[in-house]
Amino acid sequence: MMYILIGLGTFFFSTPIAAISDVVRGITQASSIKYNNLVYELTEQGRSIITLSMGEASFDIPAFSFDALSLNGQEYWYSHSRGLASLREKLSVWYQNERGICVDPKSEIIITSGAKPAIYFSLISVLDRGDEAIIFEPSWVSYVDHIRLCHANYKAIPCTKTVFEVAEYISDKTKVIILNNPQNPSGKVYTRQELAFLVSLAQEKGLYILADESYSDYVGDIPFYSILEFDPEKKHVIVCNSVSKNVGMSGFRIGYVITHADLMEHILKLNQHILTCPSTIAQYYVEYYFEKILSIVRPQIKEIIKKREAVCRMLDQLGFEVMPGTGTFYLFVSIYPTRLSSEEFCMKLLTEKGISTTPGMSYGESCNHYIRISISTEPLETIYSALVEIKNLIKETEI
Amino acid sequence: MMYILIGLGTFFFSTPIAAISDVVRGITQASSIKYNNLVYELTEQGRSIITLSMGEASFDIPAFSFDALSLNGQEYWYSHSRGLASLREKLSVWYQNERGICVDPKSEIIITSGAKPAIYFSLISVLDRGDEAIIFEPSWVSYVDHIRLCHANYKAIPCTKTVFEVAEYISDKTKVIILNNPQNPSGKVYTRQELAFLVSLAQEKGLYILADESYSDYVGDIPFYSILEFDPEKKHVIVCNSVSKNVGMSGFRIGYVITHADLMEHILKLNQHILTCPSTIAQYYVEYYFEKILSIVRPQIKEIIKKREAVCRMLDQLGFEVMPGTGTFYLFVSIYPTRLSSEEFCMKLLTEKGISTTPGMSYGESCNHYIRISISTEPLETIYSALVEIKNLIKETEI
Repeated sequence: MMYILIGLGTFFFSTPIAAISDVVRGITQASSIKYNNLVYELTEQGRSIITLSMGEASFDIPAFSFDALSLNGQEYWYSHSRGLASLREKLSVWYQNERGICVDPKSEIIITSGAKPAIYFSLISVLDRGDEAIIFEPSWVSYVDHIRLCHANYKAIPCTKTVFEVAEYISDKTKVIILNNPQNPSGKVYTRQELAFLVSLAQEKGLYILADESYSDYVGDIPFYSILEFDPEKKHVIVCNSVSKNVGMSGFRIGYVITHADLMEHILKLNQHILTCPSTIAQYYVEYYFEKILSIVRPQIKEIIKKREAVCRMLDQLGFEVMPGTGTFYLFVSIYPTRLSSEEFCMKLLTEKGISTTPGMSYGESCNHYIRISISTEPLETIYSALVEIKNLIKETEI
Repeated sequence: MMYILIGLGTFFFSTPIAAISDVVRGITQASSIKYNNLVYELTEQGRSIITLSMGEASFDIPAFSFDALSLNGQEYWYSHSRGLASLREKLSVWYQNERGICVDPKSEIIITSGAKPAIYFSLISVLDRGDEAIIFEPSWVSYVDHIRLCHANYKAIPCTKTVFEVAEYISDKTKVIILNNPQNPSGKVYTRQELAFLVSLAQEKGLYILADESYSDYVGDIPFYSILEFDPEKKHVIVCNSVSKNVGMSGFRIGYVITHADLMEHILKLNQHILTCPSTIAQYYVEYYFEKILSIVRPQIKEIIKKREAVCRMLDQLGFEVMPGTGTFYLFVSIYPTRLSSEEFCMKLLTEKGISTTPGMSYGESCNHYIRISISTEPLETIYSALVEIKNLIKETEI
């Protein structure tokens, strides 16, 4: 009897942890990471999983020598809080040579720990509480949560609308339009006309265009234009990019943000207070091997784009509807006419068929009959067999 | 005439950049970084500066081989979003062996890119808009700005009050009490009584104690107690720490947060959305050389503490009043009875006497007649001559 009472006591009176904020409760777990974690768990249980949910390209890059950098202990010290001067210089030269865009390495570029903090710090710098950001669906998973963390609101443009309809969504509170170019998950590459239209709208309304160009080199035959080309003074544009996808070095966590020097002074404060600087050794390595690794990765990116085109043909042959796009290593595939939500569909696909994808719902409410397929890690034959299984599951769960 | 008009047009009608948020305008530049940047600039101009403003200890650590890690390209990939499992395991074992504290490496610790994001993510996870955080002055420069970024408010306990008076500052909106133990800039090491009192108050009022223990190994003869010892279930405590100060590896940007698994699930989401993970190569290096570097740094930390004691004796001999403290490599020194504000004093000291320190005002309004002196980089003789100059400047600017 005594034991029972003690047991009940523990059960009923165990004190909870102290309160958790509503703002963080409102943040969702990044669903791509959630599905990949499930893959790890199932694999550990001995199941063989076809992984079409990875957000990393599977490059073949040699492990170059760190010791050849001869830093003599400089790696133990902070770098400049704008990032290593020589790396900023190198990226500026790259923009000049590759895109004909002038970036002042002293004042217009800051190195961050990946593109994610670059995007987040940019949004904090332009969004006050109650302000609005506009996003295009399908929208990369973290934008909405970054906006929430700014205590701001978002207006999502459904995937059925075009860029030229964005004006309908602008209000007095709108401060920024977020663009993912090329777009994860659809692979949409924005045209010159679309970008010029958006910049002129931003100038007219006094807004920023934040362009996340993390997949800028994954574009195939369609030309890629950086938003910077349309506003050389950078008064209305912010570009975030990284070496994660375009240079195949996601583990280094090196990204950057480019904008006007005045806005950059504020982004700098956030970098100082929240990160100080990215890992010094990672910055030195990227700076030292930048061209070398780029020259290795570039042909592999071309292969990935060819593989994407091959998967497109498979999808067409199997009768799938795919959201238009030519860039990135993702495809956004319709699962209509299943009666399942995209979340239910992906979970069933993973647990019953051993195929991991990412639900469309994570990219916006208008995308609930899509799933994202990443072609980065599995060979074509495996992807084909997975697509057949996806088609089967759609039929099995038809309305 | 035409040229004049065009010139005027450019002058008057040059469009401004798009709007910047009030929240980021309200963030101040980290003043320690500001003064160190001024030092770089003056040094570049050929001036010789005595630097007593550095926030890094000047350790002698060999540059060990990165290539010996034999990662074979794993450095190019993301790590687990909680951080490398083996590094979490190593830190948990360290807590068990060194402090007798049990930390579950799977659920109670996350590796972050330095202690700064650990602190910031913890605060987001407990503070909603309008909530209150309590800080003790002198308070490390970034706490206030982290709180502002949460759209929350802070109540600062003046440096004249004791820990046992904290209850007066608690309101219905208070969610967290932030502690820097040992305290940068005063070197105060919290006693067992103070910590036990704070934890029991947090339990009674349903609050968190966020203890930033970044200088935990800089304590001399006074024993250091982690806040974790007073709440083994971690329901009311959050510890942030890093390898920046205690292991002398600030450039690696590797920190960590320890708390209850329930709160950690929310901190994890922020880590995923804002950083993904810290630099993979930096994590592997820290994990591989942890004990080796610790064994090299530990005796050097003892030397730093001895040096601090020597500077204390100098200050006493020169008739300075110093805020009580025995830890860290900083001293918080009174500049009373100067008529200058601490900011004016530090700027005059830097530009006229070539000595760089950090103004007390950056650590709270009650600290405006103090300056922070870092003993980490300059030799004792140089520090002595600088202290004499500081004394002279106080006399020259007496009320």
